[in-house]
Amino acid sequence: MNSELQPLPDLLVEPVVRAALAEDLGRAGDVTAALIDADVRLKAEFAARQPGRIAGLVCVRLALAALDPAATLEILVGDGQDAEPGRPIARVDANARALLSAERTALNLLGRLSGVATLTRAYVQAVAGTGAMIVDTRKTTPGLRALEKYAVRCGGGVNHRFGLDDAILIKDNHVAATGGVAEALTRAKAIAGHLTPIEVEVDGLDQLEQALPFAPNVIMLDNFSLGDLVRAVAMTGGRVRLEASGGVTLDTVRAIAETGVDAISVGALTHSAPVLDIGLDA
Amino acid sequence: MNSELQPLPDLLVEPVVRAALAEDLGRAGDVTAALIDADVRLKAEFAARQPGRIAGLVCVRLALAALDPAATLEILVGDGQDAEPGRPIARVDANARALLSAERTALNLLGRLSGVATLTRAYVQAVAGTGAMIVDTRKTTPGLRALEKYAVRCGGGVNHRFGLDDAILIKDNHVAATGGVAEALTRAKAIAGHLTPIEVEVDGLDQLEQALPFAPNVIMLDNFSLGDLVRAVAMTGGRVRLEASGGVTLDTVRAIAETGVDAISVGALTHSAPVLDIGLDA
Amino acid sequence: MNSELQPLPDLLVEPVVRAALAEDLGRAGDVTAALIDADVRLKAEFAARQPGRIAGLVCVRLALAALDPAATLEILVGDGQDAEPGRPIARVDANARALLSAERTALNLLGRLSGVATLTRAYVQAVAGTGAMIVDTRKTTPGLRALEKYAVRCGGGVNHRFGLDDAILIKDNHVAATGGVAEALTRAKAIAGHLTPIEVEVDGLDQLEQALPFAPNVIMLDNFSLGDLVRAVAMTGGRVRLEASGGVTLDTVRAIAETGVDAISVGALTHSAPVLDIGLDA
Amino acid sequence: MNSELQPLPDLLVEPVVRAALAEDLGRAGDVTAALIDADVRLKAEFAARQPGRIAGLVCVRLALAALDPAATLEILVGDGQDAEPGRPIARVDANARALLSAERTALNLLGRLSGVATLTRAYVQAVAGTGAMIVDTRKTTPGLRALEKYAVRCGGGVNHRFGLDDAILIKDNHVAATGGVAEALTRAKAIAGHLTPIEVEVDGLDQLEQALPFAPNVIMLDNFSLGDLVRAVAMTGGRVRLEASGGVTLDTVRAIAETGVDAISVGALTHSAPVLDIGLDA
Amino acid sequence: MNSELQPLPDLLVEPVVRAALAEDLGRAGDVTAALIDADVRLKAEFAARQPGRIAGLVCVRLALAALDPAATLEILVGDGQDAEPGRPIARVDANARALLSAERTALNLLGRLSGVATLTRAYVQAVAGTGAMIVDTRKTTPGLRALEKYAVRCGGGVNHRFGLDDAILIKDNHVAATGGVAEALTRAKAIAGHLTPIEVEVDGLDQLEQALPFAPNVIMLDNFSLGDLVRAVAMTGGRVRLEASGGVTLDTVRAIAETGVDAISVGALTHSAPVLDIGLDA
Amino acid sequence: MNSELQPLPDLLVEPVVRAALAEDLGRAGDVTAALIDADVRLKAEFAARQPGRIAGLVCVRLALAALDPAATLEILVGDGQDAEPGRPIARVDANARALLSAERTALNLLGRLSGVATLTRAYVQAVAGTGAMIVDTRKTTPGLRALEKYAVRCGGGVNHRFGLDDAILIKDNHVAATGGVAEALTRAKAIAGHLTPIEVEVDGLDQLEQALPFAPNVIMLDNFSLGDLVRAVAMTGGRVRLEASGGVTLDTVRAIAETGVDAISVGALTHSAPVLDIGLDA
Repeated sequence: MNSELQPLPDLLVEPVVRAALAEDLGRAGDVTAALIDADVRLKAEFAARQPGRIAGLVCVRLALAALDPAATLEILVGDGQDAEPGRPIARVDANARALLSAERTALNLLGRLSGVATLTRAYVQAVAGTGAMIVDTRKTTPGLRALEKYAVRCGGGVNHRFGLDDAILIKDNHVAATGGVAEALTRAKAIAGHLTPIEVEVDGLDQLEQALPFAPNVIMLDNFSLGDLVRAVAMTGGRVRLEASGGVTLDTVRAIAETGVDAISVGALTHSAPVLDIGLDA
Repeated sequence: MNSELQPLPDLLVEPVVRAALAEDLGRAGDVTAALIDADVRLKAEFAARQPGRIAGLVCVRLALAALDPAATLEILVGDGQDAEPGRPIARVDANARALLSAERTALNLLGRLSGVATLTRAYVQAVAGTGAMIVDTRKTTPGLRALEKYAVRCGGGVNHRFGLDDAILIKDNHVAATGGVAEALTRAKAIAGHLTPIEVEVDGLDQLEQALPFAPNVIMLDNFSLGDLVRAVAMTGGRVRLEASGGVTLDTVRAIAETGVDAISVGALTHSAPVLDIGLDA
Repeated sequence: MNSELQPLPDLLVEPVVRAALAEDLGRAGDVTAALIDADVRLKAEFAARQPGRIAGLVCVRLALAALDPAATLEILVGDGQDAEPGRPIARVDANARALLSAERTALNLLGRLSGVATLTRAYVQAVAGTGAMIVDTRKTTPGLRALEKYAVRCGGGVNHRFGLDDAILIKDNHVAATGGVAEALTRAKAIAGHLTPIEVEVDGLDQLEQALPFAPNVIMLDNFSLGDLVRAVAMTGGRVRLEASGGVTLDTVRAIAETGVDAISVGALTHSAPVLDIGLDA
Repeated sequence: MNSELQPLPDLLVEPVVRAALAEDLGRAGDVTAALIDADVRLKAEFAARQPGRIAGLVCVRLALAALDPAATLEILVGDGQDAEPGRPIARVDANARALLSAERTALNLLGRLSGVATLTRAYVQAVAGTGAMIVDTRKTTPGLRALEKYAVRCGGGVNHRFGLDDAILIKDNHVAATGGVAEALTRAKAIAGHLTPIEVEVDGLDQLEQALPFAPNVIMLDNFSLGDLVRAVAMTGGRVRLEASGGVTLDTVRAIAETGVDAISVGALTHSAPVLDIGLDA
Repeated sequence: MNSELQPLPDLLVEPVVRAALAEDLGRAGDVTAALIDADVRLKAEFAARQPGRIAGLVCVRLALAALDPAATLEILVGDGQDAEPGRPIARVDANARALLSAERTALNLLGRLSGVATLTRAYVQAVAGTGAMIVDTRKTTPGLRALEKYAVRCGGGVNHRFGLDDAILIKDNHVAATGGVAEALTRAKAIAGHLTPIEVEVDGLDQLEQALPFAPNVIMLDNFSLGDLVRAVAMTGGRVRLEASGGVTLDTVRAIAETGVDAISVGALTHSAPVLDIGLDA
Repeated sequence: MNSELQPLPDLLVEPVVRAALAEDLGRAGDVTAALIDADVRLKAEFAARQPGRIAGLVCVRLALAALDPAATLEILVGDGQDAEPGRPIARVDANARALLSAERTALNLLGRLSGVATLTRAYVQAVAGTGAMIVDTRKTTPGLRALEKYAVRCGGGVNHRFGLDDAILIKDNHVAATGGVAEALTRAKAIAGHLTPIEVEVDGLDQLEQALPFAPNVIMLDNFSLGDLVRAVAMTGGRVRLEASGGVTLDTVRAIAETGVDAISVGALTHSAPVLDIGLDA
């Protein structure tokens, strides 16, 4: 476990893991497990087939415990740490039927979350030294938002808002419906609580100029050119945090970071991260 | 809707959609929605930004209906059909607050499932004319298996088993634990019901030879070279269905299909499909 | 526990048991329990009042554990084994309040599942030596399908499909709607995955003749006379598995089995099995 | 609908029906339904194959509505009314796929509940004119208690307590643990609320004598001989309601009723009622 | 723990506590907890800031256990006992992050339930020696009825019915709809089971006179003057239990009790009890 | 409906309402409802018996709809508006059985939420003209946080954070565990996302002085004297929002507001608000 990382409480993860196991076990349980004698035990190792950042070992632990309360899991490369091919991530000792029944669920969660963490790490490394944060979005898998946002943290990224309820985020449609950036921000200020963050999306320097006097917590610069990002940073002068957004890739993120923006949000972290290939070797 | 496609019943989809909306709405609902007057209506179009195969419009319909029962959704490109950039997939007319609150959940599901369908379509097209089926795996997103397997069908693919309970699938660990392919298949035949399918994974031609006399429903050829696949097809002579598996990519799938195997299973269909970029334009 | 029997995972049984306890405890818990001092312990034995096959001890264990985690249950006659009156099935040592509160739930599940196993055993014994399997149906108690199908296995029976999703089963209405047995089977072959079993119900020898060339996994002979069953077995010549179905009773099952069919499905196993009378004696 | 019968609110029945449908639909839905064109409609009739008392049409209505909101159900023989073979109970007009997918769930619930009602009716008719009520027990199917107790009412029976929380029922173990009938009743009176009913089980006339001075709401005469029942009724002189219990059958119930007891509880009503054979004819 | 008090089973309390924790932890868990090192342990005491009756320590125990299974809780002042300011109620030793994350949920439940118990105690003490019971109502917090009714018992009060299903309670609207007190009671007697309690609400002595011959279990005297209460007690002569109801306060309850009624129901016990101020001191 | 008030989506409220109804209906439904003929309709009015601020009519609407989909509810005094005794809040026309069964659940929610709104209004009016916001806390009823925080908004109050996850709030225990206000804030700044609000609780002017250079979003002045509040406001000079907290009452709130703090948090709004007395008059 990375020392600065706050783990998710089992209370939030366990329902996801148990539902995933139940989805796989179906109505009859693992019909192939009966091939193996009931009391056989199995020792095995989880290992990555490719380099990556680990996230989600809590899911592995809870999946095993759900099917074999006596299973032990020794973690060698914790969440937020880097796995290398050929070096085991964790060692498991469990009832063979239970382990084989839990294997796919455990790997589905571990691989997926480690995939998110690994992609996040790539973006974070790409901007290293620039001072820009890599930030996620709400483009997460339905049902797994808490876990995927945790995986982003494991990758060194920073979480944007968790849902529609924990910040006011004024987007183009809200601006259009209220009549302008200034009108929308005026209204937002009026309805926001003393601790409610306000962010506004702007599509150009003119909208940025309208937004700045309201000192929202963050201004999102949507699809700005590199030149406009530089100008935006200069105009803002550190008064408000700036978040660059829109079509960011690993190829473009460094240049964006070097414009001096505070944060860069990347939907792909959660909507398109390929799974990290992790296997269980007996 | 593709005419041969059996849709998922709302009964199975609705809990997923409502849980996804609740995950996004959190404890306070959409705090930004209050910027817009309560009775404003909005017409908008869902449109793909890139070519792809559509899957998941039922999620869009149910997400909208959950927040605005009076919303209407006109579908122009149905599940299992192909979207082109610039041509709308569906037209929506709904309360503005409801539409903006439902937008992200609807797009998260539609984009993800269409991503699966689009990747499946690519594999299916790559093997066109060979007679090989493209088959999915259990490497699905926890909680979304029914939906993602439906998306595979929308892409023209075929579903492998849905869980641990609807077929006996003998893998290497089961073979090891029972003492050999023949022993495992003997035991499987003894415990299988009259309608339970049996599949066995073999890692070489020698294991294939041991398996063939048992006439399981399917034999999975795991990580076979192209040469061995050709030999396996010849040895089998159509007596048992053969499924190639292991590290299949879009670059290799055609050659595999041309060996004459019946099915090719591809984990990436569900574990690493990038989202299809679909947006909502007001 | 019968050595060949694959138990149901606690993960699938626990929600049923806990819901059953909650249904019985209502909003105030067991108001009679307060008559007994809080720390009294009770030793007691579960015993059958009539001969039968046991199924469902996992429910007893989980019901006790839910109300007294320190309760111990020593199983003397396991699931899939035969109980005789006057010989205890299991010994329990538990907090008296907890035991009396859990008693009815435990017995309701144990008696009901053992009733299913006992009736199944009777059918299995009636066809002993014929080679015919006794098979269940989907005529199960809503909410208890996994448990009742497990009880059928405890009784020596074989499970038919678990639901609408794990096999194509073409019944008379499907035949009528598609235009004939051949048309229905043609369509089924086209939509079935490489591992999806196909069964077709036929109502006479002419339909059997139409079905045979399609080599479905199973053909169900619905309400055939004994003479027609014999003819069907001869016509089929072992190419396809045959399942006799319709109005089977303990009086008729042996004769049906002797026709040479592979399987006989009996709805009564789960829809009309009387409870096995089991009591708890302090 | 019998005019005196209070129906169960949909709110309580709907979760049972939807869970039952989901249990049957599994992860892929009805894979056979795809054989039928999506827009075919089907008219059909529910009809009993044997005489019986109907209970549970609400389940049929809700199962159909869940899969086809436009389905119509015309009820000809309502809950609490008597069905005769050859006369339809209800007529349905629905989408063919939806109707065939819902059929088994609807029949499982309707047949089971009508089975309970039919058996209850037999007991009620057997005691006609005696003044004795036929009463159910807590020996119900886990998860279906509310529905099965409703079916008892449809059969003309009377409900005993619904769970451990709505009456103090002192059984032999409670008597043993507290030191005697009088001690147990003293304690019960002390803890009972002003509206909490108290019932005590006695195993002989001597215990009855001890119980009478406490004037509990009901005294249960457990396994009394007919002679002792007569004596008990005489001793009680109408001061307290008397409930006969233990091993009651259709053969013995009339004689028990003629002893003058107020109520006779019969576990078999819910734990061993055979299903009423009801079919759906297209 | 008060020796006569029947505790609520964990099975009923745990879902409430876990839902409350999940409501507080939201999607990311306790983001402030990360300020504290992961392995710091904390000893602390729960103490009341004002005198009161304790109820709900089971919630504290379960909340702690949910976040730290190794936490220990030593109870010094149990449910149903009286707390004094400055004397600890319970001592806890737990992981610091877990304790601080669980603190608010534990206190919300403990304070609220102890508030109900404390207010109940005040009413019970006010009528001490009169023989009148203090009775609660169905005016409870949605979702917490079982817990709040338990808290009433901790305060020395008695529970009225738990819901709409465990007693017939004829109120003014029922009387109006059926045509009179006598008509309503006649109908109630006809539909009630042998163990179903019947209570009727009357609004004056004339209605009381109509109700008495039916000997319901309880008659509720709604908003009677003290004089009418005295007259009602005299008219009834102990034949039926009398419950006074309507606008009862701590100022008026003693005089009401002295009229000789058996029970006094007080909605405020659960709908308006101020929280008992309890804190956690490290 | 107050024009600036964002209503809670039905999606979030419906599960609470349905669970509350199910809690009240129990296992048998409303056994008294059978006294009334099944097709009787009833018109009635909801009216407050005392002046107050209304909140929670959505619960009334959903409770009625759950039991009678054809019920109509005409709202005369909406959420966030003021009710006066004798003037109806809403008119209902519904099936009589359904209305009487839903009445208590509807009133429990409406009365409780209106109680919160009414108490909030009192605090808001007490500080009118000072510029101070009245803010709630996490001292809410488990399971009802979203509803009670909505009621605070109906009363004119402002919501503090919704849970442990949407802001870093450094309390005394966190300060103690990290070694001081400065250390805690340094660590908080390091772990906070770009949009995560930070609040710190200080117990005196010296801690305030340490906190100010970190410019957290809010500083909570815990149990400050009026004099110290004045000094704190002066020291802060508008650079950071100040929230007064601790033992605030209606008697003291005005003086606190006049010190110039930005917000005053009041736990009593949700933990001790007496119910608003609302009745249903037929």
